[in-house]
Amino acid sequence: MTVRAIGVTSGDPGGIGPEVVVKTLARAGLLPEAAYVVFGDPRIILAEEERLGLRLRAREWRPELPVEPGVFLAAVAAPEGRAAIGEVSAANGEGSFRAFEAAFEQARAGRLAALVTAPISKTAWALAGHPFRGHTEYLARTYPGAVMAFWSERLKVALLSHHTSLREAVEKVRAGALLDFLRSLHGGLARVPGGPFRLLVAGLNPHAGEDGRMGREEIDEIRPALDQAAAEGLPVAGPFPPDTLFLQALGKRDEIVVALYHDQGLIPFKLASFATGVNVTLGLPFVRTSPDHGTALDIAGKGVADPRSLEGAVRLAVAFSATGS
Amino acid sequence: MTVRAIGVTSGDPGGIGPEVVVKTLARAGLLPEAAYVVFGDPRIILAEEERLGLRLRAREWRPELPVEPGVFLAAVAAPEGRAAIGEVSAANGEGSFRAFEAAFEQARAGRLAALVTAPISKTAWALAGHPFRGHTEYLARTYPGAVMAFWSERLKVALLSHHTSLREAVEKVRAGALLDFLRSLHGGLARVPGGPFRLLVAGLNPHAGEDGRMGREEIDEIRPALDQAAAEGLPVAGPFPPDTLFLQALGKRDEIVVALYHDQGLIPFKLASFATGVNVTLGLPFVRTSPDHGTALDIAGKGVADPRSLEGAVRLAVAFSATGS
Repeated sequence: MTVRAIGVTSGDPGGIGPEVVVKTLARAGLLPEAAYVVFGDPRIILAEEERLGLRLRAREWRPELPVEPGVFLAAVAAPEGRAAIGEVSAANGEGSFRAFEAAFEQARAGRLAALVTAPISKTAWALAGHPFRGHTEYLARTYPGAVMAFWSERLKVALLSHHTSLREAVEKVRAGALLDFLRSLHGGLARVPGGPFRLLVAGLNPHAGEDGRMGREEIDEIRPALDQAAAEGLPVAGPFPPDTLFLQALGKRDEIVVALYHDQGLIPFKLASFATGVNVTLGLPFVRTSPDHGTALDIAGKGVADPRSLEGAVRLAVAFSATGS
Repeated sequence: MTVRAIGVTSGDPGGIGPEVVVKTLARAGLLPEAAYVVFGDPRIILAEEERLGLRLRAREWRPELPVEPGVFLAAVAAPEGRAAIGEVSAANGEGSFRAFEAAFEQARAGRLAALVTAPISKTAWALAGHPFRGHTEYLARTYPGAVMAFWSERLKVALLSHHTSLREAVEKVRAGALLDFLRSLHGGLARVPGGPFRLLVAGLNPHAGEDGRMGREEIDEIRPALDQAAAEGLPVAGPFPPDTLFLQALGKRDEIVVALYHDQGLIPFKLASFATGVNVTLGLPFVRTSPDHGTALDIAGKGVADPRSLEGAVRLAVAFSATGS
């Protein structure tokens, strides 16, 4: 099997990103064989290794050379070269933004098969003058068909909308937007091993509206989108009553639930897949995964962060990039 | 301990109600000691016993006599005296409505300590000219402070709104209504064993709005209600990010999550408590519980219905009515 290069950004230097990256890649021998390329400031990574008493033994990454297994470091200098642990700062934001952007450019150029991103702070990004809500929104600027999905052994969920008020999320449930979303999701899933995947679409209202008695979006928006998607050959079904759909989909490896708003998908996903869930962006020319948690500033620097979600993100990135060209 | 009279309505004759009632009470010897009083048409109950090969050995209930342990039958004639299994009909609706109303009157008069209601069909009720969405809405007419809650060993949830479109549910998140709800819920919980209970209030928006960046209801409505509730001495906390709150509350016996709309509460509740969850109406002068499932017309009459949720409802009704006078 070809050795793939997997980019791993170290996330906000003030959060638990560097810690979970070092914890995961210090045991790279237990991971699938790949070239794991850490993007971050070498001084911050080194400080984290020393704090944890772990060694990455990273070599300098030189993208022009053939890909070899091991751990590599792509140095991206942060403004201050050190982390303000547990704090939200412009310097931390600029550091994580630069590392992510450098990794993104390498992935876009085809020199990375996948990108695993440790958590950033959007507030820190904003302080540094980069007003993106997160990685997905940054990626969607270049790839408008990007789809935010969540993946675990037990449950898979894709989100029609994510970081928007519930009121706005309800307004976004429109036939045209949903149809576009289903097409993007289906296309993005084509390269994912384990498919083809059935797309199970949740209703918006309690009991999926009960024939219009509790909301009309199922009749006016969702069903027309599903009818058109089915006519195009997409393996869709729904709209299903939201309160039993996730239970039905649990453990079904070839089914993914389409949730119509952030909490409809993430409440059950986090309940079913705590600590092992992975965030996946589908619909990009490369694989992108990230852990299902944030910067966790309150426990940063204490050595207690759980690396399982990042490790899961790394493993999924390797698995997903094993298919394709 | 005083023997309590627990009313058990048999639900829509076309659904699985009579079956799960007979399955549960045929083994009344395994249940806590109480007088279990079935409200329904004797011909329908008898037919169900014969179909299942089970015997209730029910005696006629005479409310004027002292309460004794055992199974009793309070005969409430259904219009046709037989069930149209698997069908939605006015006769079925009228039958289940009469049985429920008879039981309700006995509970209101203090002759039943608790009411356990098997599932009815609101469509059948409507066909019979009783346009209530369900038991809770009927009860709320007499007791406006009635609160719909869901109860299991793993998770407890109360719903600010239930059978309404998501769009309307968002409009119902108002400081005044939420404060009234918290007062009713806290009052209703006072008689429930295992308390006092902390009320953990979910946010409405993703990440609880993130300081107003994704919706303002947390700032404009929820927090003022919580501040006032706390000032009145209610044990409230929140608003919490919805996607992690249920995970936090899991297994905490003295915490109940206040969900702001139907699916916010029922998606995680059904995932965490499938087949063992119980629906509880709080804020009534008597205890009222019901199973966490519907009439299940598709499996009615086949003998395969799972009685665990009704049995859980019966056990919870006994436990909750053991306290109090």
